[in-house]
Amino acid sequence: MKQFVVVGLGRFGSSVARTLAESGYNVLAIDNDEERVQELSNEVTHAVEADATDEEALRTLGVRNFDVAVVSIGDNVHANILSTLILKELGVPYVVTKAKDSLHGKILTKVGADRIVYPERDMGVRIAHNLTSSNVLDYLEFAPDYSIVEIIASPEMVGKSLAQLELRSKYGVNVMAIKRGKNLNITPGANDKILEGDVLIVMGKNENLDKLKKV
Amino acid sequence: MKQFVVVGLGRFGSSVARTLAESGYNVLAIDNDEERVQELSNEVTHAVEADATDEEALRTLGVRNFDVAVVSIGDNVHANILSTLILKELGVPYVVTKAKDSLHGKILTKVGADRIVYPERDMGVRIAHNLTSSNVLDYLEFAPDYSIVEIIASPEMVGKSLAQLELRSKYGVNVMAIKRGKNLNITPGANDKILEGDVLIVMGKNENLDKLKKV
Ligand SMILES: Nc1ncnc2c1ncn2[C@@H]1O[C@H](COP(=O)(O)OP(=O)(O)OP(=O)(O)O)[C@@H](O)[C@H]1O
Ligand SMILES: Nc1ncnc2c1ncn2[C@@H]1O[C@H](COP(=O)(O)OP(=O)(O)OP(=O)(O)O)[C@@H](O)[C@H]1O
Ligand SMILES: [Ca+2]
Ligand SMILES: [Ca+2]
Ligand SMILES: [Ca+2]
Ligand SMILES: [Ca+2]
Repeated sequence: MKQFVVVGLGRFGSSVARTLAESGYNVLAIDNDEERVQELSNEVTHAVEADATDEEALRTLGVRNFDVAVVSIGDNVHANILSTLILKELGVPYVVTKAKDSLHGKILTKVGADRIVYPERDMGVRIAHNLTSSNVLDYLEFAPDYSIVEIIASPEMVGKSLAQLELRSKYGVNVMAIKRGKNLNITPGANDKILEGDVLIVMGKNENLDKLKKV
Repeated sequence: MKQFVVVGLGRFGSSVARTLAESGYNVLAIDNDEERVQELSNEVTHAVEADATDEEALRTLGVRNFDVAVVSIGDNVHANILSTLILKELGVPYVVTKAKDSLHGKILTKVGADRIVYPERDMGVRIAHNLTSSNVLDYLEFAPDYSIVEIIASPEMVGKSLAQLELRSKYGVNVMAIKRGKNLNITPGANDKILEGDVLIVMGKNENLDKLKKV
């Protein structure tokens, strides 16, 4: 089973560490702020107070035995870069680093980061999309022009069957599931009627989904 | 068309403001740091330097004429709460606020926030899930136990047709689309063969998807 080291226990880093630990993985969590370390100490395998820009400290913690490192020191860009560099030099095969912006991301790639993540930026995009279509709950863009979206049934849909709605012929989209409270219909049929409060999981081209969202 | 005001132009706030503006919406962007305001000034309708905890300043900017406010002052929790309260009192119908943790979220709800978001926490969960299953590219959890995941075809799948893979009978999951480079097959049939590098969009129960990810 993969072993993880998480450096920087802010909101992002601690969420990564917690989720990994909850999934049963070994997690070494590192921060130079004692309070942050304390908060996670009962939730992960090991939580340690250390300066992640101190090569000796990281070596002593045996980071080279870990498969994946996640670096998320946010405000101190230099510490973030330095820590990434040291982790790669100590031999961690896969280092994921949170970047501030794309310029920071470029430097991180140069010093050896295997993957750069932009949690705030990406979530900003997701939430902006979400706010502009008030009936959309969440979405997954799985190809440049195609998405799967969760749409709350509009008043115009309520009381009609899928056949009557003609979503495929009119909008070119496929209804893949219908959520009704705690029930989930993952094989929706032509005769299934939409009720108020239903949530439809729909797949299609973005432009077609945009039209559907306005129904 | 909805009008948006974005308060606090950190990584999250500026990403929200940019995405809304790119989608053609009117955006008033506010920050008390002149530099942050400058950075966005060419990208949004209006970018203004102001203290978002100053009721008079917000009133003068006419925030009550906006439909949605997004508050994302991160490190100063008190300013974040105060700004949310003022925006609600000035009559903004829908205020979305970024919270530090769930305790902060509770206070924000009490002062009137209509929606609380936790971008770092939520992205931490997404990325942790992503790291633990190296062949999963992205996922959407649309019901407590059901997800749609993007899976890179494993060597065991390559060369087999969907019928031969028996994913529905063996794993109880549905293949909804197959990505092959720039091509996308959104009506995959029993005879479609999986090639190396294909990405499968699969829907099913989380426990079944977990089994599939290990194939
Ligand atoms: N040299 C260092 N060694 C170890 N940890 C560090 C170091 N410098 C900063 N940290 C820790 O990194 C964590 C994240 O840093 P910071 O809060 O600046 O990032 P952030 O981007 O605002 O985080 P988030 O948005 O995820 O809350 C903090 O808990 C901080 O104590
Ligand atoms: N009273 C205020 N009025 C207006 N803007 C403010 C105020 N206080 C802070 N800000 C701005 O809010 C922005 C976001 O704050 P901060 O950087 O503390 O949050 P953050 O959670 O670290 O952001 P992110 O993770 O999205 O980068 C900053 O640009 C800051 O200048
Ligand atoms: Ca910050
Ligand atoms: Ca942040
Ligand atoms: Ca300044
Ligand atoms: Ca911080």
